[in-house]
Amino acid sequence: MRAVIRRGGRLVLDSIAEPEPDKGQVLVKTLACGICGSDLHALHHAPRMAEMAKKAGNVFTMDPARDVVFGHEFCAEVLDYGPQTERRFKPGTRVVSVPNLISPTGIETVGYSNRYPGGYAERMVLSEPLLLPVPNGLPTDHAALTEPFAVGAHAVASASLGDGDTAALVIGCGPVGLAVIAALKARGYGPVIAADYSAMRRKLAETYGADEVVDPTIASPHACWSRMGIPASLRDWRIRVAGGERLKRGIIFECVGVPGVLHGLMEAAPPTAQIVVVGVCMETDKIEPYLGITKEIELRFVLGYSREEFARTLADIAEGRIDAAPIITGTVGLDGVAQAFEDLGRPERHAKIVVEPGRA
Amino acid sequence: MRAVIRRGGRLVLDSIAEPEPDKGQVLVKTLACGICGSDLHALHHAPRMAEMAKKAGNVFTMDPARDVVFGHEFCAEVLDYGPQTERRFKPGTRVVSVPNLISPTGIETVGYSNRYPGGYAERMVLSEPLLLPVPNGLPTDHAALTEPFAVGAHAVASASLGDGDTAALVIGCGPVGLAVIAALKARGYGPVIAADYSAMRRKLAETYGADEVVDPTIASPHACWSRMGIPASLRDWRIRVAGGERLKRGIIFECVGVPGVLHGLMEAAPPTAQIVVVGVCMETDKIEPYLGITKEIELRFVLGYSREEFARTLADIAEGRIDAAPIITGTVGLDGVAQAFEDLGRPERHAKIVVEPGRA
Repeated sequence: MRAVIRRGGRLVLDSIAEPEPDKGQVLVKTLACGICGSDLHALHHAPRMAEMAKKAGNVFTMDPARDVVFGHEFCAEVLDYGPQTERRFKPGTRVVSVPNLISPTGIETVGYSNRYPGGYAERMVLSEPLLLPVPNGLPTDHAALTEPFAVGAHAVASASLGDGDTAALVIGCGPVGLAVIAALKARGYGPVIAADYSAMRRKLAETYGADEVVDPTIASPHACWSRMGIPASLRDWRIRVAGGERLKRGIIFECVGVPGVLHGLMEAAPPTAQIVVVGVCMETDKIEPYLGITKEIELRFVLGYSREEFARTLADIAEGRIDAAPIITGTVGLDGVAQAFEDLGRPERHAKIVVEPGRA
Repeated sequence: MRAVIRRGGRLVLDSIAEPEPDKGQVLVKTLACGICGSDLHALHHAPRMAEMAKKAGNVFTMDPARDVVFGHEFCAEVLDYGPQTERRFKPGTRVVSVPNLISPTGIETVGYSNRYPGGYAERMVLSEPLLLPVPNGLPTDHAALTEPFAVGAHAVASASLGDGDTAALVIGCGPVGLAVIAALKARGYGPVIAADYSAMRRKLAETYGADEVVDPTIASPHACWSRMGIPASLRDWRIRVAGGERLKRGIIFECVGVPGVLHGLMEAAPPTAQIVVVGVCMETDKIEPYLGITKEIELRFVLGYSREEFARTLADIAEGRIDAAPIITGTVGLDGVAQAFEDLGRPERHAKIVVEPGRA
């Protein structure tokens, strides 16, 4: 079958062996698969990712020296079943799944495995117990984006938003930031202030319900705090707390993931702020602990989602609480994946590109 | 009156003007004052502290180019009252206070002010509304240590210890780490594992109730997790969570405050660990955000305490839930302060030295 393969740090379209479903596994036809920023990073920096993952004792077991087929944001169609399966869904049923594959030797990550192809291939194998059927009427490419929107759902669920009476600032409006905004609005939280240097991304942030968008070249995103009644200065904070006031806590979602952003946020954040770190920074970063200490800041690093959060996100999309359509800025076949990776580097043109392996 | 003054980066014993109580203020005689690690740091690095505090919008308004009298862990005796006071306590009453002073121009930090002397002086002025009377029978030097023990109380109150069924690892058993251990045990939490390179400090940790002490040159403090049923590896963690287990969260108190410690903890901590950062690192530090992200770690920076935590700590000491005696390894007069600062650099000999300005 045809697949886009990471080979020697480049993407090549080539033929690979058909995957065969092992016990508990299902053979599926890939209908649509989103391209994730992590894939862009893994194309060039897979050795660093593998090294860091090893340090963390992670399940990210990809060997960058060997072929890998990326793609973990997928919607697929059931084709056939392997042994010891319940055959819960008829062939032809559309399904999504968290990108984990239970194999005889352990859990593999679909899209970051040397042994099993991800969604940039015509066919995949998935684990039957993890399959969720796609509700009728939900477009296939929207269902495929359950995964990136679930990342936002998990970040929001991990934040100390309390009864919702807390301002939320989203820094960076790429797919991760947009998913956070969508999850905040789906759960009824607000006001949501969103900041990005890109006009197109700010526009998308508005589409996803941001109550206010900020271009950081024109104004500080942190100007929002005083309007919310949250003093930005520790001196003012302490005087007001000493005066018996109960002040709101600022919640900041870091959705950029490049060195220096955390330091800037720790410097600008109001006292007692919670910074939910959703952006994946793969490089060493520098912080000033004293800023965190003196303002009693919380850095909450998050990753992924639970199966429940994934299932609820699928329902959010199917039932209209989250609209997956606006984030999709392009669709390509397998022969367009390499170019799509290039194009995604330009934030003024693209947010999410969906790969349709069956497309001519 | 006599006072130990920070002047030009050195400590000198000299005469300074008597403080005069302004409205709402009380003149007190300093009976005892602990020497804090922050004072040691401020002696040599005050310009850096002032610069960082300014960045954070802090109330730490000390000008390092001018004279300062340190000392913020004090017990004092009421001598006289300024105007507009309620004269709540008779002269001769022993009192403690959070080290804040309400002055006509704002709030000053007692012990880090150019305008008001701290506890390394024969007399001070304090704010009447902040005074707490010392219960009869509580030794003066024990009452003075309400402040450093309150730091531990606040750190423990800020931690996600839940119902207490969570292992707590304390890294560093200087006065801050010991205060954390004391607060954990006073509130009934455990088991508490404590690590320090110093045999004397490990001994003190045991005295304060640590259930286990670790010399990091002999064993990893993080070996405790597997004994608590907390998998240290992300792979094992995920497999067990996928199997339906509800795993305990490891809570780590960072009480060292030097660069590199946070990185080491993020590398060694089990998944979902909360690292409560109590140690005050004044230098730029490097972290690997990917370790935090992939293990979903929380860094909770904390500082100080609330007035309620301070008052409860005084009660803990007075009622025997916390014994202030073992931490006191020396007592000096004003003429011994400079040498005491030197001595505190040697963890094998000292934990807390108390200054008694009235001592011959």
